Amino acid sequence: MYPKALQNAIEQLRKLPGVGQKTAERYAFALLNYKPEEIQDFTKSILEAKMTLHPCPVCGNLAQNDVCDICADKHRDPSLICVVQDVKDVAALERMAEYKGLYHVLGGVISTQKGILPEDINLETLLPRLTPEVKEVIIATNPTLDGETTALYLAKRLEKQNCIVSRLAHGIPMGGHVDYVDEMTLIKAMEGRKKMK
Amino acid sequence: MYPKALQNAIEQLRKLPGVGQKTAERYAFALLNYKPEEIQDFTKSILEAKMTLHPCPVCGNLAQNDVCDICADKHRDPSLICVVQDVKDVAALERMAEYKGLYHVLGGVISTQKGILPEDINLETLLPRLTPEVKEVIIATNPTLDGETTALYLAKRLEKQNCIVSRLAHGIPMGGHVDYVDEMTLIKAMEGRKKMK
Repeated sequence: MYPKALQNAIEQLRKLPGVGQKTAERYAFALLNYKPEEIQDFTKSILEAKMTLHPCPVCGNLAQNDVCDICADKHRDPSLICVVQDVKDVAALERMAEYKGLYHVLGGVISTQKGILPEDINLETLLPRLTPEVKEVIIATNPTLDGETTALYLAKRLEKQNCIVSRLAHGIPMGGHVDYVDEMTLIKAMEGRKKMK
Repeated sequence: MYPKALQNAIEQLRKLPGVGQKTAERYAFALLNYKPEEIQDFTKSILEAKMTLHPCPVCGNLAQNDVCDICADKHRDPSLICVVQDVKDVAALERMAEYKGLYHVLGGVISTQKGILPEDINLETLLPRLTPEVKEVIIATNPTLDGETTALYLAKRLEKQNCIVSRLAHGIPMGGHVDYVDEMTLIKAMEGRKKMK
Protein backbone atom coordinates (compact mmCIF):
# COMPACT_ATOMS: atom_id res chain seq x y z
CA MET A 1 0.00 0.00 0.00
CA TYR A 2 2.78 2.42 0.93
CA PRO A 3 6.15 2.27 -0.84
CA LYS A 4 8.50 -0.25 0.77
CA ALA A 5 10.82 2.38 2.28
CA LEU A 6 7.89 4.12 3.97
CA GLN A 7 6.46 0.84 5.25
CA ASN A 8 9.85 -0.02 6.75
CA ALA A 9 10.04 3.33 8.52
CA ILE A 10 6.47 2.93 9.83
CA GLU A 11 7.27 -0.58 11.07
CA GLN A 12 10.33 0.71 12.91
CA LEU A 13 8.40 3.61 14.46
CA ARG A 14 5.70 1.16 15.62
CA LYS A 15 8.29 -0.52 17.82
CA LEU A 16 8.46 2.56 20.06
CA PRO A 17 6.50 2.03 23.31
CA GLY A 18 2.78 2.76 22.97
CA VAL A 19 2.95 3.58 19.25
CA GLY A 20 0.31 2.00 17.00
CA GLN A 21 -0.14 2.03 13.23
CA LYS A 22 -1.82 5.47 12.99
CA THR A 23 0.72 7.18 15.24
CA ALA A 24 3.64 5.53 13.41
CA GLU A 25 2.20 6.76 10.09
CA ARG A 26 1.84 10.24 11.54
CA TYR A 27 5.45 10.23 12.72
CA ALA A 28 6.68 8.84 9.39
CA PHE A 29 4.89 11.51 7.35
CA ALA A 30 6.13 14.21 9.70
CA LEU A 31 9.68 12.90 9.24
CA LEU A 32 9.25 12.84 5.44
CA ASN A 33 8.42 16.54 5.63
CA TYR A 34 11.64 17.31 7.51
CA LYS A 35 14.43 19.09 5.67
CA PRO A 36 17.35 16.73 4.87
CA GLU A 37 19.53 18.35 7.55
CA GLU A 38 16.71 18.00 10.11
CA ILE A 39 16.48 14.27 9.38
CA GLN A 40 20.25 14.02 9.80
CA ASP A 41 20.02 15.81 13.16
CA PHE A 42 17.17 13.53 14.21
CA THR A 43 18.87 10.23 13.41
CA LYS A 44 22.31 11.48 14.51
CA SER A 45 21.01 12.48 17.95
CA ILE A 46 19.57 9.00 18.47
CA LEU A 47 22.68 7.21 17.23
CA GLU A 48 24.91 9.44 19.35
CA ALA A 49 22.83 8.88 22.47
CA LYS A 50 23.08 5.14 21.92
CA MET A 51 26.79 5.25 21.09
CA THR A 52 28.10 7.65 23.72
CA LEU A 53 25.96 6.81 26.75
CA HIS A 54 26.89 3.98 29.09
CA PRO A 55 26.23 3.13 32.74
CA CYS A 56 28.46 5.09 35.14
CA PRO A 57 30.96 2.56 36.56
CA VAL A 58 30.55 4.13 40.00
CA CYS A 59 26.80 4.55 40.43
CA GLY A 60 25.08 3.01 37.39
CA ASN A 61 23.54 6.31 36.24
CA LEU A 62 23.78 7.18 32.54
CA ALA A 63 27.22 8.61 31.79
CA GLN A 64 28.55 10.32 28.72
CA ASN A 65 32.09 10.68 30.07
CA ASP A 66 34.10 8.31 32.28
CA VAL A 67 31.76 8.78 35.22
CA CYS A 68 28.33 10.42 35.25
CA ASP A 69 27.85 14.17 35.75
CA ILE A 70 26.69 13.70 39.35
CA CYS A 71 29.62 11.48 40.41
CA ALA A 72 31.98 13.95 38.70
CA ASP A 73 30.44 16.95 40.50
CA LYS A 74 32.71 17.95 43.39
CA HIS A 75 29.90 19.99 44.98
CA ARG A 76 27.73 16.96 45.73
CA ASP A 77 27.64 15.67 49.31
CA PRO A 78 29.52 12.34 49.36
CA SER A 79 28.07 11.42 52.75
CA LEU A 80 24.64 10.69 51.22
CA ILE A 81 23.82 7.96 48.71
CA CYS A 82 20.31 7.66 47.35
CA VAL A 83 19.54 4.22 45.88
CA VAL A 84 17.05 4.29 43.00
CA GLN A 85 15.66 1.68 40.62
CA ASP A 86 16.14 3.51 37.40
CA VAL A 87 17.98 6.31 35.60
CA LYS A 88 14.65 8.12 35.18
CA ASP A 89 14.31 8.26 38.99
CA VAL A 90 17.61 10.17 39.22
CA ALA A 91 16.20 12.74 36.80
CA ALA A 92 12.96 12.97 38.83
CA LEU A 93 14.86 13.48 42.10
CA GLU A 94 17.19 16.01 40.47
CA ARG A 95 14.17 17.99 39.29
CA MET A 96 13.17 18.72 42.89
CA ALA A 97 16.60 20.42 43.29
CA GLU A 98 16.70 19.71 47.04
CA TYR A 99 18.89 16.64 47.29
CA LYS A 100 22.63 17.26 47.00
CA GLY A 101 24.00 13.79 47.70
CA LEU A 102 25.04 11.03 45.33
CA TYR A 103 23.02 8.22 43.74
CA HIS A 104 23.21 4.54 43.15
CA VAL A 105 21.12 3.21 40.27
CA LEU A 106 20.10 -0.44 40.61
CA GLY A 107 18.79 -0.70 37.06
CA GLY A 108 15.93 -2.86 38.28
CA VAL A 109 14.51 -4.44 41.43
CA ILE A 110 14.55 -7.88 42.95
CA SER A 111 11.46 -9.76 41.80
CA THR A 112 10.53 -13.27 42.82
CA GLN A 113 7.75 -13.21 40.25
CA LYS A 114 9.99 -12.22 37.35
CA GLY A 115 12.90 -14.25 38.68
CA ILE A 116 15.15 -11.23 39.13
CA LEU A 117 17.73 -12.02 41.78
CA PRO A 118 19.95 -9.63 43.80
CA GLU A 119 22.87 -10.52 41.52
CA ASP A 120 20.86 -9.45 38.46
CA ILE A 121 20.75 -5.81 39.54
CA ASN A 122 23.54 -3.28 40.11
CA LEU A 123 23.85 -4.00 43.82
CA GLU A 124 27.32 -5.42 44.42
CA THR A 125 28.97 -2.15 43.34
CA LEU A 126 27.11 -0.35 46.14
CA LEU A 127 28.92 -2.05 49.04
CA PRO A 128 32.46 -0.91 48.11
CA ARG A 129 31.13 2.65 47.97
CA LEU A 130 30.14 2.59 51.65
CA THR A 131 33.33 4.09 53.04
CA PRO A 132 33.26 5.67 56.54
CA GLU A 133 32.58 8.95 54.75
CA VAL A 134 29.07 7.76 53.89
CA LYS A 135 26.69 8.72 56.71
CA GLU A 136 23.38 7.67 55.17
CA VAL A 137 21.96 5.46 52.45
CA ILE A 138 18.48 6.58 51.35
CA ILE A 139 16.54 3.82 49.64
CA ALA A 140 14.24 5.29 46.99
CA THR A 141 12.98 2.21 45.19
CA ASN A 142 9.34 2.44 44.09
CA PRO A 143 6.78 1.62 46.83
CA THR A 144 5.59 -1.46 44.96
CA LEU A 145 5.88 -5.09 46.08
CA ASP A 146 9.21 -5.59 44.27
CA GLY A 147 10.48 -2.16 45.30
CA GLU A 148 9.70 -2.89 48.97
CA THR A 149 11.29 -6.33 48.73
CA THR A 150 14.44 -4.75 47.33
CA ALA A 151 14.43 -2.09 50.05
CA LEU A 152 14.13 -4.72 52.80
CA TYR A 153 16.81 -6.89 51.22
CA LEU A 154 19.10 -3.88 50.95
CA ALA A 155 18.46 -2.80 54.56
CA LYS A 156 19.35 -6.32 55.66
CA ARG A 157 22.55 -6.31 53.61
CA LEU A 158 23.58 -2.93 55.02
CA GLU A 159 22.76 -3.89 58.62
CA LYS A 160 26.39 -4.20 59.66
CA GLN A 161 27.47 -1.01 57.89
CA ASN A 162 28.20 1.96 60.06
CA CYS A 163 25.69 4.26 58.40
CA ILE A 164 22.03 5.16 58.63
CA VAL A 165 19.78 3.34 56.16
CA SER A 166 16.59 5.25 55.43
CA ARG A 167 13.64 4.89 53.10
CA LEU A 168 11.79 7.64 51.20
CA ALA A 169 8.71 8.41 53.28
CA HIS A 170 5.03 9.32 52.98
CA GLY A 171 4.19 11.32 49.96
CA ILE A 172 4.79 8.79 47.24
CA PRO A 173 1.47 7.00 46.75
CA MET A 174 1.68 3.23 47.09
CA GLY A 175 1.80 1.48 43.73
CA GLY A 176 3.08 4.66 42.11
CA HIS A 177 6.36 5.34 40.41
CA VAL A 178 9.04 7.76 41.58
CA ASP A 179 9.52 9.40 38.21
CA TYR A 180 5.84 10.36 37.84
CA VAL A 181 5.57 12.13 41.18
CA ASP A 182 5.47 15.93 41.35
CA GLU A 183 8.30 17.94 42.94
CA MET A 184 6.38 18.86 46.13
CA THR A 185 5.53 15.24 46.91
CA LEU A 186 9.14 14.29 46.35
CA ILE A 187 10.35 17.02 48.74
CA LYS A 188 7.88 15.73 51.39
CA ALA A 189 9.07 12.20 50.81
CA MET A 190 12.70 13.25 51.12
CA GLU A 191 12.08 15.24 54.33
CA GLY A 192 10.07 12.46 55.99
CA ARG A 193 12.44 9.64 55.12
CA LYS A 194 12.44 6.89 57.79
CA LYS A 195 15.30 4.93 59.32
CA MET A 196 15.17 1.30 58.37
CA LYS A 197 17.55 0.05 61.05
CA MET B 1 19.79 16.81 34.34
CA TYR B 2 20.23 14.12 31.69
CA PRO B 3 23.56 13.74 29.88
CA LYS B 4 23.82 16.04 26.83
CA ALA B 5 23.49 13.23 24.26
CA LEU B 6 20.29 11.99 25.87
CA GLN B 7 18.87 15.51 26.15
CA ASN B 8 19.55 16.02 22.45
CA ALA B 9 17.77 12.80 21.53
CA ILE B 10 14.79 13.73 23.74
CA GLU B 11 14.64 17.18 22.16
CA GLN B 12 14.62 15.65 18.68
CA LEU B 13 11.93 13.13 19.62
CA ARG B 14 9.81 15.97 21.06
CA LYS B 15 9.60 17.46 17.58
CA LEU B 16 7.45 14.53 16.42
CA PRO B 17 3.77 15.50 16.20
CA GLY B 18 1.91 15.20 19.52
CA VAL B 19 4.98 14.14 21.49
CA GLY B 20 5.61 15.88 24.82
CA GLN B 21 8.49 15.67 27.30
CA LYS B 22 7.36 12.45 29.05
CA THR B 23 6.67 10.60 25.81
CA ALA B 24 9.96 11.75 24.30
CA GLU B 25 11.79 10.49 27.40
CA ARG B 26 9.97 7.19 27.15
CA TYR B 27 10.96 6.82 23.49
CA ALA B 28 14.57 7.84 24.22
CA PHE B 29 14.96 5.28 27.02
CA ALA B 30 13.35 2.60 24.86
CA LEU B 31 15.82 3.43 22.08
CA LEU B 32 18.75 3.29 24.54
CA ASN B 33 17.67 -0.26 25.38
CA TYR B 34 17.77 -1.30 21.70
CA LYS B 35 20.60 -3.52 20.53
CA PRO B 36 23.14 -1.61 18.39
CA GLU B 37 21.88 -3.32 15.20
CA GLU B 38 18.28 -2.44 16.10
CA ILE B 39 19.23 1.23 16.44
CA GLN B 40 20.95 1.03 13.05
CA ASP B 41 17.80 -0.49 11.52
CA PHE B 42 15.68 2.19 13.13
CA THR B 43 17.69 5.18 11.94
CA LYS B 44 18.48 3.60 8.56
CA SER B 45 14.80 3.01 7.80
CA ILE B 46 14.02 6.68 8.48
CA LEU B 47 16.97 7.97 6.46
CA GLU B 48 16.14 5.62 3.58
CA ALA B 49 12.50 6.65 3.54
CA LYS B 50 13.57 10.30 3.41
CA MET B 51 16.24 9.65 0.79
CA THR B 52 14.46 7.30 -1.63
CA LEU B 53 10.90 8.62 -1.57
CA HIS B 54 9.83 11.47 -3.81
CA PRO B 55 6.55 12.67 -5.33
CA CYS B 56 5.50 10.62 -8.38
CA PRO B 57 5.98 12.96 -11.40
CA VAL B 58 2.69 11.70 -12.86
CA CYS B 59 0.26 11.78 -9.94
CA GLY B 60 2.07 13.27 -6.94
CA ASN B 61 1.77 10.11 -4.82
CA LEU B 62 4.87 8.94 -2.93
CA ALA B 63 7.15 7.04 -5.29
CA GLN B 64 10.21 4.96 -4.59
CA ASN B 65 10.94 4.28 -8.27
CA ASP B 66 10.48 6.55 -11.34
CA VAL B 67 6.71 6.59 -10.95
CA CYS B 68 4.63 5.38 -8.00
CA ASP B 69 3.47 1.76 -7.65
CA ILE B 70 -0.08 2.65 -8.68
CA CYS B 71 0.88 4.57 -11.84
CA ALA B 72 3.27 1.72 -12.74
CA ASP B 73 0.54 -0.93 -12.26
CA LYS B 74 -0.78 -1.99 -15.69
CA HIS B 75 -3.88 -3.55 -14.08
CA ARG B 76 -5.26 -0.23 -12.87
CA ASP B 77 -8.13 1.35 -14.82
CA PRO B 78 -6.72 4.43 -16.60
CA SER B 79 -10.22 5.79 -17.31
CA LEU B 80 -10.69 6.80 -13.67
CA ILE B 81 -8.68 9.41 -11.76
CA CYS B 82 -9.40 10.02 -8.11
CA VAL B 83 -8.15 13.41 -6.86
CA VAL B 84 -7.09 13.42 -3.21
CA GLN B 85 -5.52 15.98 -0.90
CA ASP B 86 -2.83 13.85 0.56
CA VAL B 87 -0.69 10.73 0.18
CA LYS B 88 -2.37 9.30 3.29
CA ASP B 89 -5.72 9.49 1.51
CA VAL B 90 -4.40 7.23 -1.27
CA ALA B 91 -3.47 4.68 1.39
CA ALA B 92 -6.93 4.99 2.99
CA LEU B 93 -8.71 4.51 -0.34
CA GLU B 94 -6.44 1.60 -1.25
CA ARG B 95 -7.34 -0.11 2.03
CA MET B 96 -10.96 -0.43 0.94
CA ALA B 97 -9.67 -2.51 -2.04
CA GLU B 98 -12.64 -1.50 -4.22
CA TYR B 99 -11.28 1.28 -6.36
CA LYS B 100 -9.11 0.19 -9.29
CA GLY B 101 -8.52 3.52 -11.03
CA LEU B 102 -5.62 5.95 -10.76
CA TYR B 103 -5.01 8.84 -8.37
CA HIS B 104 -3.94 12.43 -8.42
CA VAL B 105 -2.49 13.78 -5.18
CA LEU B 106 -2.84 17.53 -4.71
CA GLY B 107 -0.56 17.68 -1.70
CA GLY B 108 -2.85 20.25 -0.11
CA VAL B 109 -6.01 22.25 -0.72
CA ILE B 110 -6.81 25.76 -1.80
CA SER B 111 -7.27 27.89 1.31
CA THR B 112 -8.16 31.55 1.32
CA GLN B 113 -7.50 31.62 5.05
CA LYS B 114 -4.01 30.16 4.84
CA GLY B 115 -3.28 31.92 1.56
CA ILE B 116 -2.86 28.67 -0.40
CA LEU B 117 -3.59 29.38 -4.06
CA PRO B 118 -4.39 26.91 -6.86
CA GLU B 119 -0.81 27.25 -8.12
CA ASP B 120 0.53 26.18 -4.70
CA ILE B 121 -0.90 22.69 -4.98
CA ASN B 122 -0.20 19.90 -7.49
CA LEU B 123 -3.04 20.85 -9.81
CA GLU B 124 -1.48 21.89 -13.12
CA THR B 125 -0.13 18.37 -13.71
CA LEU B 126 -3.70 17.01 -13.59
CA LEU B 127 -4.91 18.72 -16.78
CA PRO B 128 -2.38 17.09 -19.17
CA ARG B 129 -3.45 13.71 -17.77
CA LEU B 130 -7.04 14.18 -18.96
CA THR B 131 -6.67 12.40 -22.31
CA PRO B 132 -9.84 11.14 -24.06
CA GLU B 133 -9.15 7.83 -22.32
CA VAL B 134 -10.15 9.36 -18.99
CA LYS B 135 -13.90 8.92 -18.47
CA GLU B 136 -14.25 10.23 -14.94
CA VAL B 137 -12.48 12.38 -12.39
CA ILE B 138 -13.57 11.62 -8.83
CA ILE B 139 -12.83 14.45 -6.42
CA ALA B 140 -12.06 13.07 -2.97
CA THR B 141 -10.83 16.13 -1.12
CA ASN B 142 -11.91 16.27 2.54
CA PRO B 143 -15.46 17.57 3.13
CA THR B 144 -14.11 20.62 4.98
CA LEU B 145 -14.42 24.25 3.92
CA ASP B 146 -11.07 24.21 2.08
CA GLY B 147 -11.70 20.76 0.64
CA GLU B 148 -15.07 21.84 -0.74
CA THR B 149 -13.57 25.05 -2.13
CA THR B 150 -10.92 23.01 -3.91
CA ALA B 151 -13.54 20.57 -5.24
CA LEU B 152 -15.64 23.42 -6.64
CA TYR B 153 -12.61 25.13 -8.14
CA LEU B 154 -11.55 21.85 -9.73
CA ALA B 155 -15.03 21.14 -11.09
CA LYS B 156 -15.01 24.61 -12.65
CA ARG B 157 -11.59 24.06 -14.19
CA LEU B 158 -12.65 20.69 -15.62
CA GLU B 159 -15.96 22.03 -16.96
CA LYS B 160 -14.84 21.97 -20.59
CA GLN B 161 -13.21 18.56 -20.32
CA ASN B 162 -15.04 15.68 -21.98
CA CYS B 163 -15.28 13.58 -18.81
CA ILE B 164 -17.56 13.16 -15.84
CA VAL B 165 -16.47 15.03 -12.73
CA SER B 166 -17.82 13.46 -9.54
CA ARG B 167 -17.42 13.99 -5.81
CA LEU B 168 -17.20 11.37 -3.07
CA ALA B 169 -20.69 11.13 -1.57
CA HIS B 170 -22.49 10.65 1.73
CA GLY B 171 -20.71 8.54 4.19
CA ILE B 172 -17.80 10.77 5.01
CA PRO B 173 -18.93 12.87 7.96
CA MET B 174 -18.65 16.64 7.37
CA GLY B 175 -15.56 18.09 9.00
CA GLY B 176 -13.92 14.67 8.97
CA HIS B 177 -10.80 13.48 7.19
CA VAL B 178 -10.67 10.87 4.44
CA ASP B 179 -7.81 8.92 5.97
CA TYR B 180 -9.58 8.39 9.30
CA VAL B 181 -12.77 6.90 7.83
CA ASP B 182 -13.44 3.15 8.05
CA GLU B 183 -13.52 0.99 4.91
CA MET B 184 -17.33 0.51 4.82
CA THR B 185 -17.96 4.24 4.92
CA LEU B 186 -15.44 4.73 2.14
CA ILE B 187 -17.15 2.08 0.00
CA LYS B 188 -20.50 3.86 0.53
CA ALA B 189 -18.92 7.16 -0.34
CA MET B 190 -17.36 5.72 -3.49
CA GLU B 191 -20.64 4.07 -4.61
CA GLY B 192 -22.73 7.17 -3.96
CA ARG B 193 -20.38 9.64 -5.63
CA LYS B 194 -22.22 12.57 -7.23
CA LYS B 195 -21.70 14.30 -10.57
CA MET B 196 -20.49 17.86 -10.13
CA LYS B 197 -21.34 19.06 -13.64
